[in-house]
Amino acid sequence: MSPFTTTRSRSVAALGERELIRRIRRWLGDVSPAAPFGIGDDCAVIPATRRAQLVTTDPVIHGRHFDDSVSARAVGAKLLKRNLSDIAAMGGRPVAAVVSLALAPETGTAWLRSFYLGLAATARRYHVKIVGGDITQAPRGFFGAFLTLHGEASGRLITRRGARVGDQLYVSGRLGGSRLGHHFRFVPRIAEGAWLAGRPEVVAMMDVSDGLANDLAALTPRGLTAALDATAIPISPAARRRARQTGAQPLAHALGDGEDYELLVVVRPTAATTPLARAWSRRFPALGLTRLGVFVPTGRRPAGALNLAAYRGYEHLR
Amino acid sequence: MSPFTTTRSRSVAALGERELIRRIRRWLGDVSPAAPFGIGDDCAVIPATRRAQLVTTDPVIHGRHFDDSVSARAVGAKLLKRNLSDIAAMGGRPVAAVVSLALAPETGTAWLRSFYLGLAATARRYHVKIVGGDITQAPRGFFGAFLTLHGEASGRLITRRGARVGDQLYVSGRLGGSRLGHHFRFVPRIAEGAWLAGRPEVVAMMDVSDGLANDLAALTPRGLTAALDATAIPISPAARRRARQTGAQPLAHALGDGEDYELLVVVRPTAATTPLARAWSRRFPALGLTRLGVFVPTGRRPAGALNLAAYRGYEHLR
Repeated sequence: MSPFTTTRSRSVAALGERELIRRIRRWLGDVSPAAPFGIGDDCAVIPATRRAQLVTTDPVIHGRHFDDSVSARAVGAKLLKRNLSDIAAMGGRPVAAVVSLALAPETGTAWLRSFYLGLAATARRYHVKIVGGDITQAPRGFFGAFLTLHGEASGRLITRRGARVGDQLYVSGRLGGSRLGHHFRFVPRIAEGAWLAGRPEVVAMMDVSDGLANDLAALTPRGLTAALDATAIPISPAARRRARQTGAQPLAHALGDGEDYELLVVVRPTAATTPLARAWSRRFPALGLTRLGVFVPTGRRPAGALNLAAYRGYEHLR
Repeated sequence: MSPFTTTRSRSVAALGERELIRRIRRWLGDVSPAAPFGIGDDCAVIPATRRAQLVTTDPVIHGRHFDDSVSARAVGAKLLKRNLSDIAAMGGRPVAAVVSLALAPETGTAWLRSFYLGLAATARRYHVKIVGGDITQAPRGFFGAFLTLHGEASGRLITRRGARVGDQLYVSGRLGGSRLGHHFRFVPRIAEGAWLAGRPEVVAMMDVSDGLANDLAALTPRGLTAALDATAIPISPAARRRARQTGAQPLAHALGDGEDYELLVVVRPTAATTPLARAWSRRFPALGLTRLGVFVPTGRRPAGALNLAAYRGYEHLR
């Protein structure tokens, strides 16, 4: 369904800004708190806490992150889920979001309602409040929603730094073929991220958004290389289906497609009473956690290890 | 200067995303802290504090908030200043910002550098760190920068609510004619807002962004009306110049133009040892604080009072 309408009476321009804000508050329902904790004052107020605050921002833009084949509800959900995945990657707890809309005057009110209902349902599920935002008119044909999500540390904060020689690399779920539907249907790994942050052997973490082959560099300190076992990569069924469409290897799709929104985790070998993988499968029986390999000094990569450089190449600006 | 270039080698597309992020960090310089307190991890981390957090979001979009006649530096500065004005309006202290860019691939690198230098200079001046963001490719001809600013209460938080019959209304500075330059040159009233929040007789506050005639409704509780003295409205010299261009009254421009970014303040009459206006002029001798009128029960507006409804009409979505 297109965000835009050719019937002016069905467009946001016909509503006007004040009425549109009133409707947005109604569509958001109980995830929109009363001012000053929500929409309606110069700033939104988030109550004091003694924990470190987390902030992340990601948009959805028509023609870039979604097209007319996608339901508006799925777009609204994805906007929040993309950001939730970043909070998950640091082991955090999401708290509140603001949404800045840039929309063409011919944006349809019905489409926007479904978008907000999708956003609200996701916010409700993850206990996030939508506390503020902005609406600005954009040129014809443009729709973008820019969300900034606030969270807080749920315990220890896990950054991308800290991997050492001998540390092992794990990933949740399966990778690749996201464009066949996963990039809208994915479930941000909030509970998993918080649980991992509570495990002392977890050293570093990130979410896989640009594909394992691109993202792993951010977890890899200078002088180290991740020696991965090609046969260990958890290839999703969608990556195999996609490979049949493209003629490329399923492995290439698993490593390069991106938008997996799975957690990539650096684990230090310890004498923990319960090994990580066993504790994980008890806590999250429906989701895999796969050991991919180990960090070695650069130049000491075993002969059979996967050469990730061959699978890189995703570039946002072209 | 246009944000866009016809020479591909001078565009952000020629740089690619990774190199662009590297440059943005260099352009930001010391206002870009090291990860995880700045750019470079899944989320930015803002250290714990016991104060209430403030969040606000406002963009700048090419063709809407600026055109090719404006310097890129002024656009970058305005992006942050718009948001600073919202923090000022609650008496807060700004802390950290994230910036989500949606930019056409033909956006010029030189233009973007100047934009970030303007943003950085303003951030430095107001002790704000730029801690994260996102870059997404937008359709040809589009440039939008969406900033979310975090602050914290500097003492008491002043909201828009709480005016009662007999409370007086004040405004800082002078109003109108913003389009002649003030909408880029304005100074967000951070120090003034924090000072006002420390005065016990200050009840409510907001910034004037859509024009006094539009914004005042947000400070006016149901059942009350602000009885304003038309001769008291501080009309800026720019409003008078603008009136000579348009043929409208200078007062109409002062009340309706918007983008004044002055503070509108509700003050309770008290037996304070130093009256507000006198204390203000001692602390801020270069900036006026003008008494505009008083809140009265609706229907009891004095015969000579200004009829603001005649000056309303600014509508963001048309």
